[in-house]
Amino acid sequence: MGRVTLKEVAEHAGVHPATASRALNAATRGLVNPQTAERVDQAAQHLGYIPNSIARSLKTARSASIGLLLPDLTNPLFPPIVRGIEDVLRTVGYNAWIVNTDNEPEREADAIASFRGRNVEGFVAATARLRDPLLEELAESGTPLVLVNRRVDSPNVPSVTVDDKAGVMMAVRHLFELGHRELVHLAGPQDLSTGVARLQAFRQALEDLGLPAEPERIVEAASWSATGGADAMETVVESGPSYTAVVAGNDLIALGCYDILARHGLRCPDDVSVVGFNDMSFIDRVAPPLTSVRVPHYEIGTEAARLLLEALEHPDRHPRSLVLPPTLSVRRSTAPPPG
Amino acid sequence: MGRVTLKEVAEHAGVHPATASRALNAATRGLVNPQTAERVDQAAQHLGYIPNSIARSLKTARSASIGLLLPDLTNPLFPPIVRGIEDVLRTVGYNAWIVNTDNEPEREADAIASFRGRNVEGFVAATARLRDPLLEELAESGTPLVLVNRRVDSPNVPSVTVDDKAGVMMAVRHLFELGHRELVHLAGPQDLSTGVARLQAFRQALEDLGLPAEPERIVEAASWSATGGADAMETVVESGPSYTAVVAGNDLIALGCYDILARHGLRCPDDVSVVGFNDMSFIDRVAPPLTSVRVPHYEIGTEAARLLLEALEHPDRHPRSLVLPPTLSVRRSTAPPPG
Repeated sequence: MGRVTLKEVAEHAGVHPATASRALNAATRGLVNPQTAERVDQAAQHLGYIPNSIARSLKTARSASIGLLLPDLTNPLFPPIVRGIEDVLRTVGYNAWIVNTDNEPEREADAIASFRGRNVEGFVAATARLRDPLLEELAESGTPLVLVNRRVDSPNVPSVTVDDKAGVMMAVRHLFELGHRELVHLAGPQDLSTGVARLQAFRQALEDLGLPAEPERIVEAASWSATGGADAMETVVESGPSYTAVVAGNDLIALGCYDILARHGLRCPDDVSVVGFNDMSFIDRVAPPLTSVRVPHYEIGTEAARLLLEALEHPDRHPRSLVLPPTLSVRRSTAPPPG
Repeated sequence: MGRVTLKEVAEHAGVHPATASRALNAATRGLVNPQTAERVDQAAQHLGYIPNSIARSLKTARSASIGLLLPDLTNPLFPPIVRGIEDVLRTVGYNAWIVNTDNEPEREADAIASFRGRNVEGFVAATARLRDPLLEELAESGTPLVLVNRRVDSPNVPSVTVDDKAGVMMAVRHLFELGHRELVHLAGPQDLSTGVARLQAFRQALEDLGLPAEPERIVEAASWSATGGADAMETVVESGPSYTAVVAGNDLIALGCYDILARHGLRCPDDVSVVGFNDMSFIDRVAPPLTSVRVPHYEIGTEAARLLLEALEHPDRHPRSLVLPPTLSVRRSTAPPPG
């Protein structure tokens, strides 16, 4: 007796073979009506069908786990990404192994070696610098890899990111429409794609709106943190350009900006409007609640997991990247300029 | 030529053998002056000394990694614990593998099996329910295990926790000293040691201060979340006891309480004072900044990692638990009662 075929399973379940195939493939099962998928499962079980993926698994001892490289779990934007990744992986019985790398190339290399020794099937990484030989090498070696939140300068490394440019444009346009003409940008560090893209977008947005890009109104923060933001804002205050609004590289930088404004007796939004980026947890509860470009972190996680599962199922397919649209969460940190 | 002894290393470094031993033992190295430790290292290297721990490692193929079981990374109290654990592990070249369990016994079992298949040397777990046969079994099997943040009802499972009772006492006493006499407790779920301990402490504190414990002023939240807190507070408002202050089971529950107070037109702290528990990141930036019992999460992590490393070095030593003292971070959510 030969091996049970997919066609026989489909016939037994009363569905088209393509539907049966989708139902039995982890990466596409979500496209099938749950009841139909259940019926296909029952037929497969009844007939003793061994799906290709499981047959392959038995042959190659798949680990049903992926490695997740994060720079810093205490950065509030990563936990929802992890949650999104895990929620998708779980539906197909996969686990994620998480390692913090602190953005240190050495720890990243250690973690990757360690993961490979443990037979993880692929990687999701949020640790990319703009040039990251390690990750490029990994991608070129054929190991499935998806970047989240950040990109590297290589078309071979698929990523799921938010449209940084659109996000900054929204922030600048929002301030422009409120009447602001003198805008400060507290840029993130320029060694990451997000920092570069947001700064470029800021310059572009000013140009589109016919506003001058005063060099003194653009300061790079040393880190994506409240401390980094505070130091950068202090530089702005000391160098003394006129301004009525601040576009911060991210929410933490915006919080640091809040601190410096308060220290100099400036009220937000009465004296200075502030816009953040990420719309992280609890930022709607700070004083004042921060207007912020909302990045769909959970969805970045779910999409990254889906891309990775697809790459596992179809190793020969050319990698593709996704860019998700941001939205603007308008809150009380932005208002018309004074006077 | 025999193996170089510890005594020879100590002599060469000009230190007492006990000091050399401590310097070369990952778990105790922190007790030695860094320069002395460095000198011992150099002597050991010069003489070709192989410490016992490395000799054992070569024999048993230690993985230099530990498994970390967390219920939910999106809960802001866990990332600083992870950071503390990793900072200590890193000093001895160990990695942490992190898995989210969502407090589901099945996922916990999966993760433990998976970790064991990968030869992790021990576990730190934050997933304990009050009775957790899985973790008790693990501890009894001799696998080094340390619980963080929560305890189980077994003396054999070492843990690092905060003194919940002292924390609640501080919160209640603070409110009492401000003049509050009618206190509500929005308790956390009673299936975890933290929820039980804090509720017991609340009753005890009222008794100590000669205040009545009105049943209507104690409501159990269905989850440790803002939603759980909001629902619990809504129950309080609807059932109608008089009160001027709220002790919340944790900060998220307090945030839910904020929402319900606002919905009913009650101002915090003018009408109602609120105290949280955990002093989580950014809670000093919400409106109003929350008075909260500060739990030293980072230190919980570092102490847990140290206990685990000790257990790895000395498998026969009886497990011990640590209870760290909380402090109270007084902010603007607490004030004298109205009138």
